Amino acid sequence: MQNPASQHALAQALLSPRSVAIVGASDNAAKTTGRPQRFLAHAGYTGRTYFINPRRDSVQGVKAWPSLSALPEAPEHVYIMTGAETAIEVVGECARLGVRIATVLSSGFAEEGEAGREREDRLRAKAAEGEVRLVGPSSLGVINPRNGVMLTGNAAFGEPDTPQGGIFVASQSGSVIGALVSRARGRGIGFAGLVSTGGEADLSLGSICEATLDDPGITSYALFLESLRHAEDLASFAAAAHKAGKPVAVYKLGRSQEAAALTVSHTGALAGEDSESEAFFAACGFSRVSHFESLVEAPALLRRIPASAERGTPRIGVVTTTGGGAAVMVDQLALRGMTVVGPSSELLDRMAEAGAAVPHSLIADLGLAGAKHDIVTNALRVMQDSGEFDLIVFVIGSSARLNPELAVHAIAERGDHKVPLVAFALPEAPEAAELLNQSGVPAFRTPESCADVVAAAFTRRPATIGEHTRFAQGTRAEAMVLDEQASAALLDGQGVVTAPAVALAVADLDGPIDLPFEYPVVVKALSAELPHKSEAGGVVLGVRDAEGVRAAARAIVTDVAAYDPKIGVDRVLVQRMMDPGLAEALVGYRLSPDVGPIVVLSTGGVLAELFADSAVRLAPVTHETALDMIHEVKGLSVLKGYRGAPAGDVQALARVIVGISHLATDHPDVLEAEVNPIAVGRAGAGVTALDALVRRRAATP
Amino acid sequence: MQNPASQHALAQALLSPRSVAIVGASDNAAKTTGRPQRFLAHAGYTGRTYFINPRRDSVQGVKAWPSLSALPEAPEHVYIMTGAETAIEVVGECARLGVRIATVLSSGFAEEGEAGREREDRLRAKAAEGEVRLVGPSSLGVINPRNGVMLTGNAAFGEPDTPQGGIFVASQSGSVIGALVSRARGRGIGFAGLVSTGGEADLSLGSICEATLDDPGITSYALFLESLRHAEDLASFAAAAHKAGKPVAVYKLGRSQEAAALTVSHTGALAGEDSESEAFFAACGFSRVSHFESLVEAPALLRRIPASAERGTPRIGVVTTTGGGAAVMVDQLALRGMTVVGPSSELLDRMAEAGAAVPHSLIADLGLAGAKHDIVTNALRVMQDSGEFDLIVFVIGSSARLNPELAVHAIAERGDHKVPLVAFALPEAPEAAELLNQSGVPAFRTPESCADVVAAAFTRRPATIGEHTRFAQGTRAEAMVLDEQASAALLDGQGVVTAPAVALAVADLDGPIDLPFEYPVVVKALSAELPHKSEAGGVVLGVRDAEGVRAAARAIVTDVAAYDPKIGVDRVLVQRMMDPGLAEALVGYRLSPDVGPIVVLSTGGVLAELFADSAVRLAPVTHETALDMIHEVKGLSVLKGYRGAPAGDVQALARVIVGISHLATDHPDVLEAEVNPIAVGRAGAGVTALDALVRRRAATP
Repeated sequence: MQNPASQHALAQALLSPRSVAIVGASDNAAKTTGRPQRFLAHAGYTGRTYFINPRRDSVQGVKAWPSLSALPEAPEHVYIMTGAETAIEVVGECARLGVRIATVLSSGFAEEGEAGREREDRLRAKAAEGEVRLVGPSSLGVINPRNGVMLTGNAAFGEPDTPQGGIFVASQSGSVIGALVSRARGRGIGFAGLVSTGGEADLSLGSICEATLDDPGITSYALFLESLRHAEDLASFAAAAHKAGKPVAVYKLGRSQEAAALTVSHTGALAGEDSESEAFFAACGFSRVSHFESLVEAPALLRRIPASAERGTPRIGVVTTTGGGAAVMVDQLALRGMTVVGPSSELLDRMAEAGAAVPHSLIADLGLAGAKHDIVTNALRVMQDSGEFDLIVFVIGSSARLNPELAVHAIAERGDHKVPLVAFALPEAPEAAELLNQSGVPAFRTPESCADVVAAAFTRRPATIGEHTRFAQGTRAEAMVLDEQASAALLDGQGVVTAPAVALAVADLDGPIDLPFEYPVVVKALSAELPHKSEAGGVVLGVRDAEGVRAAARAIVTDVAAYDPKIGVDRVLVQRMMDPGLAEALVGYRLSPDVGPIVVLSTGGVLAELFADSAVRLAPVTHETALDMIHEVKGLSVLKGYRGAPAGDVQALARVIVGISHLATDHPDVLEAEVNPIAVGRAGAGVTALDALVRRRAATP
Repeated sequence: MQNPASQHALAQALLSPRSVAIVGASDNAAKTTGRPQRFLAHAGYTGRTYFINPRRDSVQGVKAWPSLSALPEAPEHVYIMTGAETAIEVVGECARLGVRIATVLSSGFAEEGEAGREREDRLRAKAAEGEVRLVGPSSLGVINPRNGVMLTGNAAFGEPDTPQGGIFVASQSGSVIGALVSRARGRGIGFAGLVSTGGEADLSLGSICEATLDDPGITSYALFLESLRHAEDLASFAAAAHKAGKPVAVYKLGRSQEAAALTVSHTGALAGEDSESEAFFAACGFSRVSHFESLVEAPALLRRIPASAERGTPRIGVVTTTGGGAAVMVDQLALRGMTVVGPSSELLDRMAEAGAAVPHSLIADLGLAGAKHDIVTNALRVMQDSGEFDLIVFVIGSSARLNPELAVHAIAERGDHKVPLVAFALPEAPEAAELLNQSGVPAFRTPESCADVVAAAFTRRPATIGEHTRFAQGTRAEAMVLDEQASAALLDGQGVVTAPAVALAVADLDGPIDLPFEYPVVVKALSAELPHKSEAGGVVLGVRDAEGVRAAARAIVTDVAAYDPKIGVDRVLVQRMMDPGLAEALVGYRLSPDVGPIVVLSTGGVLAELFADSAVRLAPVTHETALDMIHEVKGLSVLKGYRGAPAGDVQALARVIVGISHLATDHPDVLEAEVNPIAVGRAGAGVTALDALVRRRAATP
């Protein structure tokens, strides 16, 4: 993070440079390296432009300069379109001359193995010789449609009139920026800037976005991420964007394991696990969308629906002139957990009085005959004023395409009411979308992306991530496993109550065994070398007396020796057998290399893994968040008193989640912790951990 | 089902009538009732047209006739656009005159409660006075773009040149037909006919489609269903479509419970449970798509990928000029269970030799520089000829929009290879889609719909449904529940082995108890009035001796009496305690009112319900299908030998599923059956039902 003045200077040189240079400019306007010159001219960039080509006197009819050093001034922003080795030299020249930003198209850096990484180190070192900051390498460029800055070789920008608007796009994929512009074009969606961030050798995607936050023309952000790189910069941007009230939509690859694996080969970066990404975005207050087009469709709605920590189930109303189309919408919303509510009887009466009668139903179906300006206007007015809805979705029938004067205009005129409207036209209707989007009514092309964005908007929470968030450098450290007793002792400090237990030396078992609790007991191998005791035969349940303890210990010693002769069991832990409670939970903690400390809740067991039935958050968490997590895990719904059974002690479980999550602040040396299972008793009866495991950084000598 | 000649005559009158009449034709071309006249003229319909309006001499400058009876001939197809009562009279007139088809736009029938149902009965009765068949009521019409038949008031058809092609659309929603045309327009996708089936008072959606199967211009079907009505007609159509080799794509509402509820109010029809729909469509060999636009995008790919009963995991290759876009595609495919396979090393060598070198990766990334006609051609040729792929997806970058000569033309030229291609352009590129679709390369607008359709195509199985399929009229019959012993005896005939058990009279328990098996045992209330024994305290586990049996019986009598004083327990079932096995399964059977007999497999228990972890098929099923079902239930994956554990007896479980599914043919009087749990032992050790319940039709006196 930099100071505001330098942020401002960075943004200015990035998006509004007074002078630019293209290094490696081609005389052939059709080539990638010839395009920026043409694009800048067509887009009407009014700053000073310099084209560097040491082998020619002119390029495309304009003077060519032999080098940056030969220019009459240091350009503010240089776009380098040469080979990798030349690019390194040119960056050195930028540093010497006082250039502010060098955007590097050149490839051949970290994505190309050891030799490439070495080149990238030299690239960075050259930049560090001056004040120049780098975008890229492998950046397809920087575009500002507001002032004609078109520093890009992306052919997509060969079309005139890149649509202007408030969205700033930052993408780890270069081709995506052009694709998003083409998909927004003609639909009333526009951009305040687009950056292809490439290899992020210097400026990361997060820091580029953060630098632009003061720009009043930027009202929202759309991020395309292949992987979670430089999460600390994204977190810093997220906190600042939250303060600035500018919403952020994100599309991230790696929902599937296959795509996660692909990003390794594609960009040279490792994708984090998707549930960690989800937790990270939630903490950032980002809205993650799952449809590609949603990325440009989402910002308009996000601007209308503020993030809320307290929000209950949103009340979504659906009004339509096409019942079939509206049913598609209701289905898609419900699949994403968004429940549509029908108008109340009172509201139905008021609609009828206003000349917009609809039958009693989940949707307000005005019918084919309702596609008239006055009827639509009155229906929306009464519905928006009713206080019954947090959002109203208008599903428009065939009139959207051919007769916008019937419904579309009326909807567009209701866009500034405090209850937001969104629109989906069942037919293809780009002109309607354009008018609606320009009127403050977010309009969607498919019912799926509409539902996707509505769900993303209503599940957005305020950013809770801040600068204090630790990112887990520690995972590369030497680690040691604590045995169950030591693990339980450490977690006791976090408020985790473990079942009463005593450690006994196997050698001492022939003498009398006095336990501070009653039988039956569980006997377990006690060894830091044996984190997975059960598999090794290291656990005997239901032991009823002292002789049983001795027999169990002998069996454990034998079985563990058979499992792994290198592990000697000198001690056993004798633990009181506890009531299994209403449900068993697993609470885990780890330092993720991608997103820092996280806390995980699940039911444990094979089924929970099969169904990915877990809740993941960045740690630490509040008690409220812990309760949310319990709510999220389906397998723990028994704790709600499912089917007349007694309710479980969710408060006590939440306290354990909070306590374990605070390992992030209380024990920075802990790399991983897990209590599994925790028996959850009835409400008020508490919870008891039955096993515990901690891995921490090895003490440095 | 009708005979082929009458089917043919029906299709001819429906889609290619030599004469048509519009009843209720308006002089105002802008009104719904004025539109067909304009549409017919603009579309160049060359048959004879008659416009009926008893209040005018002319409509829109053409002679108006006072009634159908006044015409010089009986028109083949009449479109009735009057009020409901008039429509009934006009249908009577159609019957008298020998009209073949009357399509009824009028509403006010079954969707409007008791009075409407009575009107619908009269409508049907009037039709039955002659040979006229009805489409509708509430039908937005019938369109055949091939010959200008435009019997519709849907404003969407006001645009000229409805795109022609091979898709026949049948939709329960009228507005959908116009929306689909608008979404296909300009993308090389066209239609051989569209029908809004409305209330299906006479001709059902399935029977309309079946009548058109001989039409050589119809190559595929796209169905939009709000609910499963007249499933027997759909089944008959499905079997015939399978024989004719014409694929069927279907979009059905009701994936969510909310939309299912909505169809009640919207169309007056009850939606079946969605899992039953899935089972039904699978047996029909239909491809269900989950994205609205997929409905028009799917048919082209379905025609290239035949349904297969034997198909393994499809091998999908992805080739691209935009790595980021291809990664989006891979992610979307993988989310739908479609795994992308990368080129082999040998293939990579051959691609490099052919001048289309790509890095080793899951995707064949030709890069920005690979967007050249020769490179794309050579890459595709070598990949298609390699035998390594069942389908190749080309993800096209920015060139798709602005420079189709680079990649799009080359892809289009490879469309007729035996290995099918599909294309997705990352930017908006309608012209590219048009060229590709016309060249036999299905082209998609969003990565989500592309993945949706690919998954739908590869999971399509041949239609197994036939005319023998029973639809469950029986569920309305009086039913009786069998007690556990009688249930087990009936299921024994289906090959279901139940744990050994004897029934004992409670009154006789004071005497000696001789069991034909060893203790421990389970004691259960034996009563047909107590289908849910456990809830009532009717089950005691782990009983170790005769005295225990007596005590258990006493406790059961007391507890059941407390649970429901009306239920007297005279007998108990004493059952041998069995090893719980590796897993417990639930096998259920029922006659669904919507789709007929179905068989269900799940793990039983709360979690299975919470995660909807079940497999549903129409009954009866084959052994192979039963194995598929076992594979589908995640909670039974332990039977595969999960994590080194022994594998379970899936063959024996499959035999039980098959046996229970044959209740459909062996015991048509059984309405419902369930064995829960079935303990599944290790491979070869068999499976044992621990409880059984059968509900059957009450014997008629």
